[in-house]
Amino acid sequence: MGNEQLEELRGQLDDVNEKLVELMNERAHLAQEIGRVKSSQGMNRFDPVRERKMLDMIQEKNQGPFETGTLQHLFKQIFKASLELQEDDHRKALLV
Amino acid sequence: MGNEQLEELRGQLDDVNEKLVELMNERAHLAQEIGRVKSSQGMNRFDPVRERKMLDMIQEKNQGPFETGTLQHLFKQIFKASLELQEDDHRKALLV
Repeated sequence: MGNEQLEELRGQLDDVNEKLVELMNERAHLAQEIGRVKSSQGMNRFDPVRERKMLDMIQEKNQGPFETGTLQHLFKQIFKASLELQEDDHRKALLV
Repeated sequence: MGNEQLEELRGQLDDVNEKLVELMNERAHLAQEIGRVKSSQGMNRFDPVRERKMLDMIQEKNQGPFETGTLQHLFKQIFKASLELQEDDHRKALLV
């Protein structure tokens, strides 16, 4: 009984993991597009004001069970990874 | 023109951020449930074999643009946050 319940919950978790992979890549793709637009306008890719707004949105939307600080920490890692992706794109563009 | 495009992309990114907050919390809730089932069976909450399987799934499902190593790093942070949540639950249960 307990094991069946565990397998059922793990199946649901696997589905959520898969959706998270897709959504993180969707986000990465959008961040790349934004990087390209900014680059074409000579704008700096890193924008602390915009990051602050996104972190505030998390506070506003968070219904738990994760604490807001935990989600904000996770998102900061996502921001960092996205910025690195934009910088890779930029370096590749310079090499063309 | 460039600014309109930027605002449009940022709007899409905000939508994705909001979905990510919801999905991470959905995952956190499932992890809590799993923690409770394991706890009731005297099982250890941390399971390196299960974590390895989830990391392998990321490799299998990843279509980019994030590199698999980047996604795996992000998921390790999520695993860690989920385990901390399960441990908080456990401590609270002990205090009841």
